[in-house]
Amino acid sequence: MNNDYEKHSHLIQAVSPNRLQDAQNHLDSLTKPPGSLGVLEDIARRFAALRDKPFPTRYSKAIYVFAADHGVVAEKISAYPSEVTGQMLRNFIDEGAAINVLAEHFDVDVEVVDIGVDGDFEGLPKLLHRKISKGTANMAKGPAMSRQQAEQALDVGWNLAMNKAREGVDIIGVGDMGIGNTTPSSAILSLYGKTGPDKSTGRGTGVDDATLKRKIEVIGQSIRCNQPNADDPVGVLAKIGGFEIGGIAGMILGCAANRIPVVVDGLVSAAAAMIALKLNPKVADAIFTSHKSVEPGHQIFFDILQSPPLFDFRMRLGEGTGAVIGISLLEAAAKIYSRMATFQSADISGKENS
Amino acid sequence: MNNDYEKHSHLIQAVSPNRLQDAQNHLDSLTKPPGSLGVLEDIARRFAALRDKPFPTRYSKAIYVFAADHGVVAEKISAYPSEVTGQMLRNFIDEGAAINVLAEHFDVDVEVVDIGVDGDFEGLPKLLHRKISKGTANMAKGPAMSRQQAEQALDVGWNLAMNKAREGVDIIGVGDMGIGNTTPSSAILSLYGKTGPDKSTGRGTGVDDATLKRKIEVIGQSIRCNQPNADDPVGVLAKIGGFEIGGIAGMILGCAANRIPVVVDGLVSAAAAMIALKLNPKVADAIFTSHKSVEPGHQIFFDILQSPPLFDFRMRLGEGTGAVIGISLLEAAAKIYSRMATFQSADISGKENS
Repeated sequence: MNNDYEKHSHLIQAVSPNRLQDAQNHLDSLTKPPGSLGVLEDIARRFAALRDKPFPTRYSKAIYVFAADHGVVAEKISAYPSEVTGQMLRNFIDEGAAINVLAEHFDVDVEVVDIGVDGDFEGLPKLLHRKISKGTANMAKGPAMSRQQAEQALDVGWNLAMNKAREGVDIIGVGDMGIGNTTPSSAILSLYGKTGPDKSTGRGTGVDDATLKRKIEVIGQSIRCNQPNADDPVGVLAKIGGFEIGGIAGMILGCAANRIPVVVDGLVSAAAAMIALKLNPKVADAIFTSHKSVEPGHQIFFDILQSPPLFDFRMRLGEGTGAVIGISLLEAAAKIYSRMATFQSADISGKENS
Repeated sequence: MNNDYEKHSHLIQAVSPNRLQDAQNHLDSLTKPPGSLGVLEDIARRFAALRDKPFPTRYSKAIYVFAADHGVVAEKISAYPSEVTGQMLRNFIDEGAAINVLAEHFDVDVEVVDIGVDGDFEGLPKLLHRKISKGTANMAKGPAMSRQQAEQALDVGWNLAMNKAREGVDIIGVGDMGIGNTTPSSAILSLYGKTGPDKSTGRGTGVDDATLKRKIEVIGQSIRCNQPNADDPVGVLAKIGGFEIGGIAGMILGCAANRIPVVVDGLVSAAAAMIALKLNPKVADAIFTSHKSVEPGHQIFFDILQSPPLFDFRMRLGEGTGAVIGISLLEAAAKIYSRMATFQSADISGKENS
């Protein structure tokens, strides 16, 4: 047990039903018919019960975009060439990408992590330099990474979460960038969903029919050749994973350890969440869903988590673009919880005819 | 033709397909796979085509909450007593209601309009004083208001929109407060949906089974006794409407006349939108949906508008609480449109394998 995420896993504790009931009671005292804010009340209750201190005056929020490359692109399973990962990394730093625009709008800080991009970015300012290797190996021909690299990826995310928690962050979101990364993500979800890759695999950034067929075959081939064991999540990550998937999984564990809600994005962070949930099922209490992706494999995650998506905007971009919307909704829900008047304080009449 | 909303109705013009295509072309040049932001791209395209000037640096947004009382509460169809309308009006001004908290979070100004509340609020600061009468008459026994009052209500909303447009507002949302107002709203939607009131009527703020049954009967009775003609929307508003419904309808017309997107909220603003659409079908291009309410009658509106809701949070509060979330999403979409880098400007490679 040499890894940070393992050594401190006792920090991850489930939320008690009493805390949820206390939060519900408070919500029912606010000036609105009980339950009339629907989903916003559901997430407010969970957030209030998870959090170990009062809600703040001003919220600190961050979206972590983990970027990495994938050896499996050699199988021609993506619509864009690998070099786009590094080009988009620079676009993030230049604040020209969708995630920059949306994060600015929703007042969320963007943190970009190079955990395994195939390129040299030493001089790039603001980038979090955590490169494990310049991309994974081709999982269609053997393990994507070593077991040690998988543990290293988990530690990268875990330690970034621990650092950010010390700064006093209130909500964290996770996103991804990596040409080819819907392929390992669909493979992981296929494994945990106990379903064929045809059920968990979509068009990613927009591949044609022939490429989709090849992508499904490559996922099947990767699983046959590596024989991942679902009960060994680190092994799964090493065999059919990606560095960004490991980093996100570690960050989810680290958020749960600090009772910080972590908002997941689309297919790739869902695959990462599966790894985190398998490592420690108690992380479920810290995980908040955001959008439902166009990718069919995403539904496997919602089914296993037993928590529905908040919204379906037919998005399929990644980067954390769905998660930042979810972060803002979670913040809105927390403000409902802590800032609305009560029936008593506003002197408003109660129900009749009901 | 003595009414402002009628005299200037020529200002309402449909959006041309060319403008929509130009907007689509621009969206496809941005650094993301085409269409990958799904619904956000759909509303960005519509907003860009509707708007007659470039997107601003800083957005001015307002939610108008129209408040009024309803004579039909004498039939005991609501879970809360009529006095709550005035009490909530004060809660809005004191910034203790859900709409205040959500609007503050999403950086939207709240404008509260007394268009027909049963009470005296002359001294109340910040309130927009546009009272037509202290509540409507009981529509179960005759028309809710006179035809002249219906036209007056439409003018209130129209002129508020014209004034706000002159101030340079970018997005407007509409919401409501009025104990009993889901009853006339369900009646209007029942009429335009050509369906029985049992299909268009829900529990409002949360009535029990017996009250729901009575509410459905009262709506049927109101339609039988008033015989509204669907092709005479002003008559419909007068016979089975409410002052806030008229005000919201007028505001929707006024927004369309100024090419300002107007985000509708739940059941009550949907009923108002039906009146506005019947007065001038071209307003459809200015109407943006937000949430889908728990109220069953709401679906009639989406079907007739042929535009789906953006999200379903199981909300049923009114006040514009769904609309402010929609406003923020519309602003986010506009920023995507105007602030993202293009493939060319960021020097990013295009597609292959597709």
